Amino acid sequence: MAHGGDRYRNRVELDFSVNLNPLGVHAKIKKSIIDNIDKLEYYPDGEIQELGEKLSEHINVKKEDIIFGNGASELIMAVINAVKPKKILLPVPSFKGYEKAIEASGGGIVEYEMNCEFEITEDIIEKITDEIGILFLTNPNNPTGKYIRNELLEKIINRCEETHTAVVLDECFMELSDKPEKNSFLNRYEKYPHLCILRAFTKSFAIPGVRLGYLVCSGKALIEPVKKMLPEWNISVPAQVSGIAAIDLLNDDPYLENARKLIKDQRTYLEQELTGMGFEVIPSDTCFLLIKYPDSKIDFYGELLKRGIMIRDCSDYRNLEDGYFRIAVKTEKENKGIISEIQDIIKGYV
Amino acid sequence: MAHGGDRYRNRVELDFSVNLNPLGVHAKIKKSIIDNIDKLEYYPDGEIQELGEKLSEHINVKKEDIIFGNGASELIMAVINAVKPKKILLPVPSFKGYEKAIEASGGGIVEYEMNCEFEITEDIIEKITDEIGILFLTNPNNPTGKYIRNELLEKIINRCEETHTAVVLDECFMELSDKPEKNSFLNRYEKYPHLCILRAFTKSFAIPGVRLGYLVCSGKALIEPVKKMLPEWNISVPAQVSGIAAIDLLNDDPYLENARKLIKDQRTYLEQELTGMGFEVIPSDTCFLLIKYPDSKIDFYGELLKRGIMIRDCSDYRNLEDGYFRIAVKTEKENKGIISEIQDIIKGYV
Repeated sequence: MAHGGDRYRNRVELDFSVNLNPLGVHAKIKKSIIDNIDKLEYYPDGEIQELGEKLSEHINVKKEDIIFGNGASELIMAVINAVKPKKILLPVPSFKGYEKAIEASGGGIVEYEMNCEFEITEDIIEKITDEIGILFLTNPNNPTGKYIRNELLEKIINRCEETHTAVVLDECFMELSDKPEKNSFLNRYEKYPHLCILRAFTKSFAIPGVRLGYLVCSGKALIEPVKKMLPEWNISVPAQVSGIAAIDLLNDDPYLENARKLIKDQRTYLEQELTGMGFEVIPSDTCFLLIKYPDSKIDFYGELLKRGIMIRDCSDYRNLEDGYFRIAVKTEKENKGIISEIQDIIKGYV
Repeated sequence: MAHGGDRYRNRVELDFSVNLNPLGVHAKIKKSIIDNIDKLEYYPDGEIQELGEKLSEHINVKKEDIIFGNGASELIMAVINAVKPKKILLPVPSFKGYEKAIEASGGGIVEYEMNCEFEITEDIIEKITDEIGILFLTNPNNPTGKYIRNELLEKIINRCEETHTAVVLDECFMELSDKPEKNSFLNRYEKYPHLCILRAFTKSFAIPGVRLGYLVCSGKALIEPVKKMLPEWNISVPAQVSGIAAIDLLNDDPYLENARKLIKDQRTYLEQELTGMGFEVIPSDTCFLLIKYPDSKIDFYGELLKRGIMIRDCSDYRNLEDGYFRIAVKTEKENKGIISEIQDIIKGYV
C-alpha cells in the first residue's frame, strides 16, 4: 500500500499526503524528457556516465562513491540485500518504507523509541552493538520533520564505525529543509566508511513519477556489494535525462533556494493557523508538519478526502499514538485552501 | 558492462548488437509519454492497476499472476533473491544477464552444455535434481536464436515440478519470433506452479530506454516472495503509460505481426547473403543470428565499429568457442548496409 495517500483509487484534487518541492516539476525537466523521446529505443547507459559526472561535481563527491537507484526505495532494498543484517536498528516513529524492505530480508527490527518530543537522544548509542547490521536514520526525520543535532549524529556514526554497523542516513528531504549546508553530512562522508547517505531527485525536484535516487558511500566493502544487488540498466533514459536537466537548471535558476524560502514561510503560516485552531503542531525543519487535534471524534482524513484533499493518516506508524496526521507544506494558495477546509470541518462538529 | 555493444562510449550509427523490434518505437508510445508529462509530479501507481488490467486481458492471464519489473533484469534478480537457490541450472551458451544476478546472490551455477547444434536435449532432465533451486531457460534462446521443442520443454517443466525447482522461462524474444502462439507457454502457465514466464516490452516494442518487463506465475508460494523483493513504486510513470499505449496500439495496428513478417523475410535475406560469403549461420527462429566466419584473422567487430556499426562479439559466452558474433535482424536498408560493409571487409583481407 502507498505510504502517502492513494491518489489512484481516490478522487484527489490537492495531495497533502506526499512531501515534494511545492514549486512543482520544472519546465526544463519536462523538456529534457520530451527532447530525448527518440532515445527510448536505446538501452540506458548502464554506467550512468554523464549524470554521474555532473552529480559528482555538483555535490562535490567522488563519482565512484555514488550509486544511482530506481528511486531511493531500490537503494534501501539493495543495502539490506547486500548487508544481510540479522538485526536492524530503527528509530520510531520513522519512514515506513524501511519496514517493508526489512520484512522482505527476513532481518529482525530492534526499535529505538524517540522521546516524547520525537527526538533521538544519546541513549541510542547503547543500542548500537556488534549485532546491529544496519541503522536507519532519516534526517530530517519523517513524519516528525525534525533534524537530528549534528553533534549527536556524529557520535552515533562514530559508534557505528566501532561496531561495523552500516548507517543509512536518509537525507531525502535535506534539500527542502532549513540550512541544508549546515546539516547535511555530504561534506564529511569520506571520514566514515560505514556511512551511506541516501538522497533523491524525487522530493527535491518534485518528480516522483520518474524514479531517481542515489547513495553516497566511501567504503568499498559496503558500496561494491550494494552495486551488485542492483539490476542492470536500472536507471531509465527519462530518469537519466531528468537528473541531468535538474542539475543543469540550477546554473541559472535558484529553484531549490526559492523552494526552501517558500517552505519556511508557508510552514510558519500553517503552524500559526493550525495552532490557532487548537492543533498540536510538532516543530518542523522541513516541508511537512506532524499535527494532532485534541478532539479525536473529528475524522479529518475522511472529511478532507470528501472535499478532494488527501492528507497522511499516521495511525500505522510505530511508536506514534492515534490521532496524528502529516501534511505537506505546499504553495500559499494550496495551504490557504486546506486551512479553510479544516476550519469548516471543525465548525461542522461544534 | 553492457551485454550488447556500448553505444555510450563508441561512435555507433547502426546498432546490430541489441535485438529489438526493427520497426522502432511506435509514435503512439512516444505520444503517451509526452501527453502524460505532467504526471511526473505524482508517484506512480504502486498497484499498477490500469496497466495490469489491460495486460491481463491482452495476454489472457489472471491479473494477480502478473508482476511488473523495472525491466526483465529486475525480475531475474528478484526471483533469485526470493528463492535464494544454492544451485542454479544454466544451459550454456545462454543470456549473460543471468550470470550477473546469480553472482550477486552467492548461488552456484551448474552448467548444462547444449549439444554441437546449440540445442537442449533430453539429457538435461537428469541434471534437474532437488538441489537445483532455479532453472533458467530462454525460449527462443539467446544468442543462438533457437526454440526449445514444445514436447521437451513440457518434460523439463514437469520434472521441475517434481523437484520443486523454479523454472524461469524467458520469453523476452517470443513476440518477435516465428509462430509465438504455438511456442509460448503463456496459454498453459496455470498448470505449473513452479513456472515463471518472463516477458518484456523492451524487445517487442523497441523501448529499452523505458524499462518495463513482467513475470507470469500461478504459484503463490513463488510469486509472493518475489513481489516482496521488489522496491516500492518500481514502475515509473513513463513506463506505465508506455505499456498501456503499447497494448492499446495493437487494437488498430498489426505492429507485432508486421514486425514478425519483416524479421522472417529479412532473416532469410541475411542468412542467404552471409552463407553465400562463407559464414556459418546458426538457423534462427527469431530476430537475431549467431554467425561465424571461417577465417579467424578478420576482426569483424573492430572493422565494423570503425564504420559506425556495432555487433555483438560473443567470445565471453560460456560453452561457445571464439569467433562467434550475434547480429540483430533489422530493416531492409540497415541489413543491406551491414552486408555491404561485411563484403567490403572480407575483400580488404583477400
